[in-house]
Amino acid sequence: MRGYTGNKEDHLRRLRRIEGQVRGLQRMVDNDEYCIDILTQISAATRALQAVSVSLLDEHLRHCVTEAITEGGAAAEEKIKEASDAIARLVRS
Amino acid sequence: MRGYTGNKEDHLRRLRRIEGQVRGLQRMVDNDEYCIDILTQISAATRALQAVSVSLLDEHLRHCVTEAITEGGAAAEEKIKEASDAIARLVRS
Amino acid sequence: MRGYTGNKEDHLRRLRRIEGQVRGLQRMVDNDEYCIDILTQISAATRALQAVSVSLLDEHLRHCVTEAITEGGAAAEEKIKEASDAIARLVRS
Amino acid sequence: MRGYTGNKEDHLRRLRRIEGQVRGLQRMVDNDEYCIDILTQISAATRALQAVSVSLLDEHLRHCVTEAITEGGAAAEEKIKEASDAIARLVRS
Repeated sequence: MRGYTGNKEDHLRRLRRIEGQVRGLQRMVDNDEYCIDILTQISAATRALQAVSVSLLDEHLRHCVTEAITEGGAAAEEKIKEASDAIARLVRS
Repeated sequence: MRGYTGNKEDHLRRLRRIEGQVRGLQRMVDNDEYCIDILTQISAATRALQAVSVSLLDEHLRHCVTEAITEGGAAAEEKIKEASDAIARLVRS
Repeated sequence: MRGYTGNKEDHLRRLRRIEGQVRGLQRMVDNDEYCIDILTQISAATRALQAVSVSLLDEHLRHCVTEAITEGGAAAEEKIKEASDAIARLVRS
Repeated sequence: MRGYTGNKEDHLRRLRRIEGQVRGLQRMVDNDEYCIDILTQISAATRALQAVSVSLLDEHLRHCVTEAITEGGAAAEEKIKEASDAIARLVRS
């Protein structure tokens, strides 16, 4: 059981939609559709992935990080470091 | 025939791999894997999508935009405006 | 007293360096330097600003959010929501 | 004389405003203002820098790249490669 599992169905639904967007991109390339239209769809898929990230991170803070802080000790420090590193990767991608 | 069709197979191959990454993300969520590990994989999929964008845009400049400029006239202006708008969307996503 | 004030001098030092980078950009534009070189410097200044953000957010989690969670109640919920919204803005900028 | 010099005053005006934003950030840190408010202002400054980038790149395509393509030969190829590399750096920052 993870922190995000309360919203598991929501995450899976979003990821299935993104999978559909990526398959749509393959069809667009296969049909030689206009480059700029493909780029617009890639931006949409990218934003959808980032929205899943932000949502997972929010739940991570609400559950794993909150629990670690409540318990106190070195685990809290470690969880926050891990979350900050994940935020840094997100901001840079 | 579009500017990017010379690399069509390369784009399709990359998009199929991204589709696989997004299906892998669904499995990770479904198996309640650790949130931070899922975030790392989302960053990887996001970067892979952005790399496809940059590659499509490069070919767009090499073909559509170059042709429009060579022919001259209002079409060149329009193509560059379209490319700049696409770049702005990419930078913001 | 804020969570980040322990690293206040470090943040100020970084922001002063970024101010210098932005003044350097003005000189480059004023001297008609090559566009691509200016873009490279803008990317560097942008990354430096993002690094300050990630560092401020890390300290925010370590101090404000940790305190609110330790005290418990609605304040913790509110602080995490605020942090997640800030992360969403960072990821999108 | 560079491609962007027609809008030189506009770029300088924007960069001076960004310099003012970065000085404002230093004041905020110095006055121990609330972390989340500082993050909001950093996002604004980052977006302003990215807008200058997109605008410089647009003019680069309109002038340097267009000229190189009109003249033809290896220079066009080189200019497009350079622009694509700059776009890749922008997308990743």
